[in-house]
Amino acid sequence: MLKVDLVLIGRTSIPYLEAGIKDYTARIGHYCRFAVRELPSVKNGGSLSSEELSRREGALFLAILAEYDRVLLLDEHGKEYTSRALATQLEAMTVQGASKIAFVIGGAYGFAPAVREKYPLQLSLSQLTFSHQLVRLIFLEQLYRVFTILRGEPYHHD
Amino acid sequence: MLKVDLVLIGRTSIPYLEAGIKDYTARIGHYCRFAVRELPSVKNGGSLSSEELSRREGALFLAILAEYDRVLLLDEHGKEYTSRALATQLEAMTVQGASKIAFVIGGAYGFAPAVREKYPLQLSLSQLTFSHQLVRLIFLEQLYRVFTILRGEPYHHD
Repeated sequence: MLKVDLVLIGRTSIPYLEAGIKDYTARIGHYCRFAVRELPSVKNGGSLSSEELSRREGALFLAILAEYDRVLLLDEHGKEYTSRALATQLEAMTVQGASKIAFVIGGAYGFAPAVREKYPLQLSLSQLTFSHQLVRLIFLEQLYRVFTILRGEPYHHD
Repeated sequence: MLKVDLVLIGRTSIPYLEAGIKDYTARIGHYCRFAVRELPSVKNGGSLSSEELSRREGALFLAILAEYDRVLLLDEHGKEYTSRALATQLEAMTVQGASKIAFVIGGAYGFAPAVREKYPLQLSLSQLTFSHQLVRLIFLEQLYRVFTILRGEPYHHD
């Protein structure tokens, strides 16, 4: 069965987002082996410059993401997809034989250049900026939607 | 003081979204007189076709929206904005003398053509489709962000 992780950094600190994440994690679990994989925050991150923080987070991401055979970054510089196009993208990955896929949300300042260079497949959720905590819930709803599209289930209507 | 309403139809039925909406409603209330204005669902809506339902909801919206001097619809056919561009849009409305502004989220099937014709100022949150329940929370975070941008407060970074 396909293994999919949502990889992110730092705790979800807002209780209502945590509740929503739990809800969608359970729903997505009907379609694949799914987990939210939370990497620990960089120690004393608050005392670092945004560049240095994102560089250190980047090193952590690069170490972890090597475990996956497909990686898609959620990045504001990425390409915008419709929900159906994202479903097609996920389907293409599995048709190409991917069995362990990571979707990745960066830290508060996004991804370091080294991470963006290594993983060019990048999705931008919106031209609007959303808080990186809220992005977790937004993306999970989207991933759930994508699976319902691939199964032809009646959740999504264009 | 500027009056801003988020007008929408039907109850927020998911407790964690309700909690998030309450949180952002309080935060936005520091910048303007703000309320979420929930119109009652159309009776027996479930037994109607999607066109008929959105037509009846449209009649309800048109009656209510006449009270506002500026109306912006959240509609998938609308224009995509960055958060800064949306802030500029809100600022322009107030500079032009608007004192009562409505942001409006349609029903599950979006807005009837009559509503979209009457109110051409339309914002698309994303090319992705989000559930119309989740859109409520997403937009409130955005509206909060817009006010922090206009005040030069350190919530938003590009």
